[in-house]
Amino acid sequence: MTTIDEFLAANLDHYIAELSELCAQKSISARNEGTAECAELVGRLLARHGLSVERFETPGNPVLVGRASGKSARRLLCYNHYDVQPAEPLELWTTPPFEPTVRDGALYARGAQDDKGEFVARLAALDAVRAAHGGELPCHLLFVVEGEEEIGSPTMTQFVLDHREVLACDGSIWEGGGIGPDGAAELVLGARGILVVELSVQTMTRDAHSGGGHQFPSAAWRLVRVLSSLKDENERIRIQGFYDHALPPSALDLALLDTLPDTEAMMREVYGVKQFVLGRTGAALERAVFEPTCNIQGITTGYQGAGDKTIVPAQASAKLDFRLVPGMEPDDILAKLRAHLDAAGFEDVDIHTFGGGMMPFKSSPDSPLVKLTIETGREVYGKPGVIAPMSGGSTPIYAFSGPLGGIPVVTAGVAYWDNRIHAPNEHVRLADFLNGARHVARIMDGFGTL
Amino acid sequence: MTTIDEFLAANLDHYIAELSELCAQKSISARNEGTAECAELVGRLLARHGLSVERFETPGNPVLVGRASGKSARRLLCYNHYDVQPAEPLELWTTPPFEPTVRDGALYARGAQDDKGEFVARLAALDAVRAAHGGELPCHLLFVVEGEEEIGSPTMTQFVLDHREVLACDGSIWEGGGIGPDGAAELVLGARGILVVELSVQTMTRDAHSGGGHQFPSAAWRLVRVLSSLKDENERIRIQGFYDHALPPSALDLALLDTLPDTEAMMREVYGVKQFVLGRTGAALERAVFEPTCNIQGITTGYQGAGDKTIVPAQASAKLDFRLVPGMEPDDILAKLRAHLDAAGFEDVDIHTFGGGMMPFKSSPDSPLVKLTIETGREVYGKPGVIAPMSGGSTPIYAFSGPLGGIPVVTAGVAYWDNRIHAPNEHVRLADFLNGARHVARIMDGFGTL
Repeated sequence: MTTIDEFLAANLDHYIAELSELCAQKSISARNEGTAECAELVGRLLARHGLSVERFETPGNPVLVGRASGKSARRLLCYNHYDVQPAEPLELWTTPPFEPTVRDGALYARGAQDDKGEFVARLAALDAVRAAHGGELPCHLLFVVEGEEEIGSPTMTQFVLDHREVLACDGSIWEGGGIGPDGAAELVLGARGILVVELSVQTMTRDAHSGGGHQFPSAAWRLVRVLSSLKDENERIRIQGFYDHALPPSALDLALLDTLPDTEAMMREVYGVKQFVLGRTGAALERAVFEPTCNIQGITTGYQGAGDKTIVPAQASAKLDFRLVPGMEPDDILAKLRAHLDAAGFEDVDIHTFGGGMMPFKSSPDSPLVKLTIETGREVYGKPGVIAPMSGGSTPIYAFSGPLGGIPVVTAGVAYWDNRIHAPNEHVRLADFLNGARHVARIMDGFGTL
Repeated sequence: MTTIDEFLAANLDHYIAELSELCAQKSISARNEGTAECAELVGRLLARHGLSVERFETPGNPVLVGRASGKSARRLLCYNHYDVQPAEPLELWTTPPFEPTVRDGALYARGAQDDKGEFVARLAALDAVRAAHGGELPCHLLFVVEGEEEIGSPTMTQFVLDHREVLACDGSIWEGGGIGPDGAAELVLGARGILVVELSVQTMTRDAHSGGGHQFPSAAWRLVRVLSSLKDENERIRIQGFYDHALPPSALDLALLDTLPDTEAMMREVYGVKQFVLGRTGAALERAVFEPTCNIQGITTGYQGAGDKTIVPAQASAKLDFRLVPGMEPDDILAKLRAHLDAAGFEDVDIHTFGGGMMPFKSSPDSPLVKLTIETGREVYGKPGVIAPMSGGSTPIYAFSGPLGGIPVVTAGVAYWDNRIHAPNEHVRLADFLNGARHVARIMDGFGTL
């Protein structure tokens, strides 16, 4: 009987061919180009790998679910997506984005890593685990492949709520994952939640001449005052009750944060930062990920062209995002924001939300799935992994994990630090593809007896 | 010997023909279309009316000066401009903008009022005064006609400084002037100065992902804090020394303000204002024109498109205008703004100025020229004029009046409240043209013996 590693090494070309087949099928969800055809292809691929396939229609693109039974009663869910970003600007691609090409040890195509490469590596892992166990699987496997991730998964939250029994599982491997610059596996255990709002204020029905600035109420000044009311000079958010449910990091979280590679110099160089928020540096800079934020994405008011224009603006708006740490909920923060504005005399300020926000998510570093992922990552990559207890950004993981009972979620994938995802010349390195498959196969292998 | 009024009534058609000739000559300074030809024509017109003409080249369009001697040693200067605004959108004109047409008692053409109509009315006034005095003028007259008013008179300030002897005078009739909705002459005695700046701040060399909002310094928040530092909740500007030289209105100024027609209801209706600045109403609303202002013209930062974008903006800027009351100077305020920013820890905030600003200007309500203008206005229009001691906007009058020794400046013209200047279907009503000429002729007539 072959081993996982032998099987994958022997069949790498086959899986790269399969990945090429999938990447050649355009599937741009933003323009609905090729997504229907790609959904069909994904269904065939799942079936080809011995999975029983169900196709779920949604208000958008269909969700494909493939399942296979295993020895243990435990169920592991793999989440991926078959849609990709648009490929423009096309002229910056060395070879066309939908004509997959191998060169210099990598496969170049739109989706080669994000997320088709990762998906096919997991199919390869499935085959390898089966081969290593004489055709049997050690646990039940469930592949969920959606088609609207690149446009924000607008129907996924409802889909999970509506299909809790279909999706029931004991743990999940999420999208993403791979290695960092030092060649060690990176594992992110959590993501902050997010609430995105646009605050708008209108003080007049039209702009007025600024010669009347002593008379006409300015929407620009009103917005500046609204924004000033939200956060003090020390970055403390002044919305009453904002921090009420925010959970602090555990001692283990802090210990993990302190093991992360130092990215301060990189951030200073890449972004030209002279001074970070509140002058943070070193450990404080990493630990602040457990602080919620109130960020201004942009402000729109008045005249913004060349030269000047002597007006008092009638309208002003700001887009804001609040990043929420575990314990906080977007709905609660939205209600508190409204109450804050009303209490401060800003009843006239309108709040528009972009979607319902995202809940924060966190897998415990103590969870057996997390430990398995770390151990197998060390085995595959020959060095201890980099474990981030929390990332500053947000993902819809909670939309899966929450309704499914707070299951632990990990990442294990085929990425490195320069795959050019969402950009020209996206690629996956063949060695990363192989290692990603080896890693996922080991997690599938061990999950049944956790 | 004919009287002023008889002469003008008898020759109205002639002057409307002359005005049509001038309006038919395109002179769009913004695109330099026809300005050279119009300058030539203005020179011929001035000569045709018995003025000795000098043409001054500037870095932009030439300035025409016409002068005529009179009995008294006193010199009255009339300021006008021969350039016009672009005429677009052309399809909204009933008759083409450069094919002057009389209908319904008005001449329609671009420039019919602003400022060619006013200029020709003053030539008519000159002729009428001469006719009423047997060919003599009671005072020296000086016509100054520039060609770049509609693009902000970029070279006029320097021109006046360089030609103080050429332009020497004892008083001036400025552009503008006419009647309000109640048919009484309107006279504005002053204009606030202005300083326009753009404040810019850059905290990074590129936008960062807002997942790093606890780390990356936000230009948007920094700008909000900069702006908040400039003005308190009571509209008090917090720049140190800002109010040091601001002169309060005199008792006469306040008395004049209280005679102005109530525009509050109009402003509420036209601009949809629910509450004016600081809840001002009635007399307080008018009197606030003697307060300097700090207005935000517009703010630019971050993402302003549809939906949202999770970024921490690297750059932010705001255009501001400060309106300055008599006693204040743009250069002084600019220096104090810089000092304020530096003292508040905003040394990194860049200040860009738009031009050198404008000084405030004010003719004393007690000045003999002002009194003459009011008295003659009452005579022509049959009712007391409306005298505003100060307007909220800004004009480059000081650039004339200041270097020429602080001469008094008045307005007397051909406007009513709906001439559509800068818009399609600009026109001057023939009756207003006639009355404007009657008014100016009376001022010319009386100025020699003031």
